[in-house]
Amino acid sequence: MALIVQKYGGTSVGSPERIQAVADRIITWREQGDDVVVVVSAMSGETNRLLNLISAIDTKGSKREQDVIISTGEQVTIGLLCLALESKQCAAKSYTGAQVKVLTDQSHGKARIVDIDSAKIHADLQTGHVVVVAGFQGVDDSGSITTLGRGGSDTTAVALAVALKADECQIYTDVDGVYTTDPRMVPEAQHITKLSLEEMLELASQGSKVLQIRAVEFAHKYNMPIRVLSSFDHGVKGRSTLVTAEEEVMEKVVVRGIAFNRDEAQLTISGVPDQPGVAFKILGPIAEANIEVDMIVQNAGTDQLTDFTFTVHRNDYTQAHDILCALSDTMGARGCSGDNRIAKVSIVGVGMRSHAGVAKDMFQCLANEGINIRMISTSEIKVSVVVDEKYLELAVRSLHEAFGLDQAI
Amino acid sequence: MALIVQKYGGTSVGSPERIQAVADRIITWREQGDDVVVVVSAMSGETNRLLNLISAIDTKGSKREQDVIISTGEQVTIGLLCLALESKQCAAKSYTGAQVKVLTDQSHGKARIVDIDSAKIHADLQTGHVVVVAGFQGVDDSGSITTLGRGGSDTTAVALAVALKADECQIYTDVDGVYTTDPRMVPEAQHITKLSLEEMLELASQGSKVLQIRAVEFAHKYNMPIRVLSSFDHGVKGRSTLVTAEEEVMEKVVVRGIAFNRDEAQLTISGVPDQPGVAFKILGPIAEANIEVDMIVQNAGTDQLTDFTFTVHRNDYTQAHDILCALSDTMGARGCSGDNRIAKVSIVGVGMRSHAGVAKDMFQCLANEGINIRMISTSEIKVSVVVDEKYLELAVRSLHEAFGLDQAI
Repeated sequence: MALIVQKYGGTSVGSPERIQAVADRIITWREQGDDVVVVVSAMSGETNRLLNLISAIDTKGSKREQDVIISTGEQVTIGLLCLALESKQCAAKSYTGAQVKVLTDQSHGKARIVDIDSAKIHADLQTGHVVVVAGFQGVDDSGSITTLGRGGSDTTAVALAVALKADECQIYTDVDGVYTTDPRMVPEAQHITKLSLEEMLELASQGSKVLQIRAVEFAHKYNMPIRVLSSFDHGVKGRSTLVTAEEEVMEKVVVRGIAFNRDEAQLTISGVPDQPGVAFKILGPIAEANIEVDMIVQNAGTDQLTDFTFTVHRNDYTQAHDILCALSDTMGARGCSGDNRIAKVSIVGVGMRSHAGVAKDMFQCLANEGINIRMISTSEIKVSVVVDEKYLELAVRSLHEAFGLDQAI
Repeated sequence: MALIVQKYGGTSVGSPERIQAVADRIITWREQGDDVVVVVSAMSGETNRLLNLISAIDTKGSKREQDVIISTGEQVTIGLLCLALESKQCAAKSYTGAQVKVLTDQSHGKARIVDIDSAKIHADLQTGHVVVVAGFQGVDDSGSITTLGRGGSDTTAVALAVALKADECQIYTDVDGVYTTDPRMVPEAQHITKLSLEEMLELASQGSKVLQIRAVEFAHKYNMPIRVLSSFDHGVKGRSTLVTAEEEVMEKVVVRGIAFNRDEAQLTISGVPDQPGVAFKILGPIAEANIEVDMIVQNAGTDQLTDFTFTVHRNDYTQAHDILCALSDTMGARGCSGDNRIAKVSIVGVGMRSHAGVAKDMFQCLANEGINIRMISTSEIKVSVVVDEKYLELAVRSLHEAFGLDQAI
């Protein structure tokens, strides 16, 4: 008998009919003897409805009050799911984040979980209940309701699984797992049965939107296996992807998958004096404007001057460009430039650690297709390149084939 | 400087624009130096939206989970109102029933308030906040969310006013107070400036739907003055009705107002053996079917037989009639009959206590109009009669004139 935590997202509980289907699925797990704790999101559309109400009043109001409003979305779902379970003769009990309690810090709208009290949940499991917990929310030490930020339900599920010492954290979504790349772009993309948490972390941060990156980080830290499943599968136990500790992943392929992202823009300030502190001088004003920077590349020049390039979210491009051009003048740089029609492509795999030459293979593949690389950035298990957006599909398809990912494994 | 508790109902907070108007009104009270605690209902339509979601799953599910869902309506309003206040530079803080905390018993869906912790609210008032509390909800001693039943926001407001030792509890609604009768039926109906809590209790229970009867009972018990005002008045302090202790009401008119009700149906079981326990035998099965009985009249007969008549809500008429006919057979009664096209008309006034002959004046007035009286029931400050529904308007208008209520006082 296992203890599993299941998380169902907004589309999985998007209508009364979908909630009934989720209840059926939970009962099947119960019937085979597992204890089940369920984390749910707000019904799809509900959070936006609440955000629209807030917009109609004042979006600049206190985050404390916004959290009071937003957190009702999940509260409705927990009640409805318990009613659905009860109507199918399955004892169930709901808890809001505050009731559990999921203790967080006071950062309303993006709170971090500090502690979870698992006593009530364990007691309810003992008496045969399915326990249904509102995702995405908690309570600070003054008793104010907090939210973890969008997508935080995944984090609630993983944190709850860790606190309860669950055997597995199952994330139900609208896809049946992780693929070698986005099947909408590459029809030959293969389903991945098992991958490591580190690989998932890189894939998630590179734009594979199956799992929230904070949840994967949390799972990685506490070594909690995550299984990604589809709540739209007809069978209860369909295909899934298990994301687990590296040592559990038997077959260490060199490249596990290809992630891509066209939400970024590239900015360059060129001919900057190559002195200590120059990176801080450039990125300080960007950070102060609350603009997040992703890739950063600095080329050491020969004439005491250097070029400094980085990427930001495409929405922040204009603002970042203005800041950079102003900086260019005050720093006496040669000039600033940018491009928001770029895309990032990354190959990810723990096997890279022990296999030299993966980056070289990547560059060769892109060269063969005549694709110019604008930026390169590497980590232990990932190589990312920035290319012109128009080459994105070609790059992903070529790399997918070059690394043998279109073969079933 | 006074401490006032204000309650705004669903239509008063029915849209973002209405919520802004409520915020303006609160700020005007604040600016003249009063401390203000606000109780709000769910935005109009919201509770029905939530009930529809519940209906789509299962209405027979546990009340605990239904309360989890229903209570979100008020939670959204408290957050929105605080955002509106903040946007107008007025410090505000919201509390759900559980956060206050409003301790109730465990009767989900119709919980009764046991205790209110006023410490947090007093502390926030001290620091210059307007405190906004979700009406209609509380928490039981196990931490489960409870609701007080529909209209319970009035009760929350009065209970909070009592707990905080407020100077006045203001109930904002869509009318500017209590009238001598419903102005939609009698255009000559006069606005009442002041009446006693007992009179309000009788008027409320007789169908004047301005205030919830439980709230008036609560106010009566703790002697908390209630002021009924319209949130649709343009001026902040328009016309109102103060409902207060009898000794505060200067002018004791004999008849304060006329209430009426066409939601009832009459049932009679005739020729029942006139023995001890017969009322219990008849009303026991009715109560077991969860049917509430309003008026009860028993006529002592001369031949050891009695007729027993009572009224129920019109929705319960068919079920009650079936129960009664079955009873009639088993009890050996002469028969059962009923009528659901009846109406109840009541005259109410504390002055009746010291004025004999009020009932006689009422019967004479109805006789003059040729209206037959089917049932009579009296209390210390009220006389109610049941008449054919078709005579309702005539009866109300005639009585209104006969007791001089169409003269401004």
